[in-house]
Amino acid sequence: MSRRYSAEAVTAAGIALFQAAGARPEDAQSTVAALVTSSLMGHDSHGVMRIPEYLGLVARGLIRLRSEISVERTGPATAIVDCGHGFGATGAARAVQEGLQIAREQRTATVITRRCHHVGRLGAWVELAAAQGMIALMTCNSPVYGHFVLPWGGRDARLATNPIAYAVPTSGDPVVADFATSVAPEGKLRFYLNEGKPVPAGWILDSDGNPATDPRGFYGPPRGGILPLGGSAGHKGFALSLLVEILGSALAGLGPQDPDFLGNGNCLVLIDPSAFCPPDKFRRLMDETVAYMKSSRPVPGVAEVLVPGELEFRTLRIRRTEGVPIDEPTLLSLHEYGRGFGLDLRQWLN
Amino acid sequence: MSRRYSAEAVTAAGIALFQAAGARPEDAQSTVAALVTSSLMGHDSHGVMRIPEYLGLVARGLIRLRSEISVERTGPATAIVDCGHGFGATGAARAVQEGLQIAREQRTATVITRRCHHVGRLGAWVELAAAQGMIALMTCNSPVYGHFVLPWGGRDARLATNPIAYAVPTSGDPVVADFATSVAPEGKLRFYLNEGKPVPAGWILDSDGNPATDPRGFYGPPRGGILPLGGSAGHKGFALSLLVEILGSALAGLGPQDPDFLGNGNCLVLIDPSAFCPPDKFRRLMDETVAYMKSSRPVPGVAEVLVPGELEFRTLRIRRTEGVPIDEPTLLSLHEYGRGFGLDLRQWLN
Repeated sequence: MSRRYSAEAVTAAGIALFQAAGARPEDAQSTVAALVTSSLMGHDSHGVMRIPEYLGLVARGLIRLRSEISVERTGPATAIVDCGHGFGATGAARAVQEGLQIAREQRTATVITRRCHHVGRLGAWVELAAAQGMIALMTCNSPVYGHFVLPWGGRDARLATNPIAYAVPTSGDPVVADFATSVAPEGKLRFYLNEGKPVPAGWILDSDGNPATDPRGFYGPPRGGILPLGGSAGHKGFALSLLVEILGSALAGLGPQDPDFLGNGNCLVLIDPSAFCPPDKFRRLMDETVAYMKSSRPVPGVAEVLVPGELEFRTLRIRRTEGVPIDEPTLLSLHEYGRGFGLDLRQWLN
Repeated sequence: MSRRYSAEAVTAAGIALFQAAGARPEDAQSTVAALVTSSLMGHDSHGVMRIPEYLGLVARGLIRLRSEISVERTGPATAIVDCGHGFGATGAARAVQEGLQIAREQRTATVITRRCHHVGRLGAWVELAAAQGMIALMTCNSPVYGHFVLPWGGRDARLATNPIAYAVPTSGDPVVADFATSVAPEGKLRFYLNEGKPVPAGWILDSDGNPATDPRGFYGPPRGGILPLGGSAGHKGFALSLLVEILGSALAGLGPQDPDFLGNGNCLVLIDPSAFCPPDKFRRLMDETVAYMKSSRPVPGVAEVLVPGELEFRTLRIRRTEGVPIDEPTLLSLHEYGRGFGLDLRQWLN
C-alpha cells in the first residue's frame, strides 16, 4: 500500500525534517530535491524512502552536519572533491559543478570524490551536466560491507552493485542511462526473500558457488553472491564492475577493503561535445540517433523501443501531476521522525 | 586445421606482403605487429586472419596507402585524429600517442578519430596507454553496414557489436578488458551457420522479433538481429552499445546511417592516476584489488578467478614459445597474395 502526495508537499516535509535534524538549509534542499526527483522519475528505491535512512545516518553521526567540502584542483583537467562525510547529494552536486567549470575550460574533465556519502540516483548527476551541454559519464562504488557481487568464476563476493550512469544532451530530454553492473540489486533479493518467492534463474549463487533460486541461498549464512551482469557473458559484467571499483577506490587512494571508506566512491568524466562537433549539429545528430533507434519495429508484446531515460522522463511528467507514491512503512517512519523533532508533518503528508 | 609459426616468421611474412602491396614500411610494421600480437594473445579473430582482409581493402583502394594523418588539437584536453582512411592500426596508435601527450599535460584527455579503418583488437590501444601509466578507456563503433545488433525491445538491428575496452596499470600485467556490448559477435553466428548447429538461446531474434536458435533466423532474408549484452537485463547492454555509437558517430559529426562512414569510429579517454594518487601507491592498490578479486574461491568446475586480460597474457607467453596458429584458408590466402606480388612466403610460412 502506498499513498500519493504532490512533489511540493513531500519536498516541504523532507526539508523541514532535515532542518529539524540540524542540516543546513542548502543541504536539506539539495538532498530532498534529489530524492524527490528520483521518486518522480519512478526510481522509488533511490527516492523518498531514503529520507528516514539518511535521518538515521545523521542521528548516528555518520553524515556530518557541519562538514565543509574542499576541492583540490590536481591538474589542469582534474579535481578531487573531498565531501567531508557531509550529505552525498551536496557532494555530488559540487563534483558536477567543479567538473563543469573544468570541462568548459579544458573540454574534458575527470573529477573524483572522497569521503562522500550515498549519492542516491547516479543519473541525477550526469543529467545535471548534460543540461549544460556536456556528455557525462559517472561511476560509483561502495565499501566492503556492500560487496554482494561475485567476480566471474568466483563464489565469494568481492564487488558492490557498482552502477554506471551516463547522459548525453539532445534537443529534448537527454539520453540518460543508469544501471547496476550486477544482474540485480540486493534490494530486489530482499523483496523475494520477504515474499517467500524464488528469484529468477541466473541471479545468484549459493555459498558453495552453485546456481540458486532460493533467496536464502544468497543470504545464508554463509552468504552466497549476486552474479555480474551478462548471463553467460558475465565476464563482461565483471569487467565493468571492476572498472567501477578501480575508479571509486584505487584511484582515490583506497584499498578494496579499506575500513575507513564509507558511502560512495565516485568518478565523473565530462566531455564537451563542442570540442568535436558544433553544439547545434551535435544535438541534431543525437536526435537522429534517438530516432534511428526508435525506428526499429518493436518485438511482439512491446509497444515501442525506448531509449535510456525515456521511461523516466515520462514517469516524471505523470507523477508531477499525479503525485509521488510513498509506501506505508516510509510514511510511518517520516511521521515518527517528525514527532521526534516536534514537527507535525500532517500539514504536508496527511 | 591450423599450423603454428613463430611470431617472428609471421611478422616478417606480413610485413613483406604489405610492403609488396605498396604500404609504407612504418604502416606495414604497425599493422602487422598489432595483428600478430592479437594472435599471440589468443584473439585469432582479430589476428593474422585479418592480413588477407586488409590486403583486399588495399587492393580495392579502401585503405589508402599514401594518406597522411592530421591532428587537430581542439581544446586543451581534446584532439581529433583524422586518419585519412589509412591503415587503422597506424591511426589508432597515433590517437594513443596524441592522447598520452595531452594527458601528461592536462591529466585527462579525450581523443576521437575520423576516417579511421578497422583498428583490430581494441585492447591493443588501451594497453599501449596503460604501459605508460595511464588508465585508458576506448570505444569503437562501425557504420550502418555493421548494424547487426538490436536496440532493446526492437526487431530491426540499429547498432554494431560496439566494443568497449579499458586498461589499468598494475605492478605486473595491466588489467585489460575488451568486449563487445552485444551478447555475441556476428562471426560466431556464421560459425554456427556453417556447422549447421543451433546458436545458444538468448543470442538472436528472427526478423519477426521472436527468439531463435537457428542461425538462419538471424541471416534470413529478411535478417533478424543479435541481442545486446545482458540477457533479461538487455536494456543495460543496449545502453552501453548506444553510448559507443554516440561517441563513435554523433561526437565525430556523423549521423547514424552516414553513407560516407567507413571503418571504425573511436573515442579514447585517458586519465592519469597520478593526478589522484601517487603512481607507486596506485600500482600497489591495483595489485591489492586484483589479489582481492582472485581470493574469491572458484565455483565448481572453475580453476581460479581470472581478472580481465589475465588469460590473454598467459596465452601470449605460451604462444611466444609455441607459435601462432594459422588456419588453412588464411595460410592459402597469404601464399596466394604472396604469389600475386611475386613473393615466395615459404621462407617464413613453410
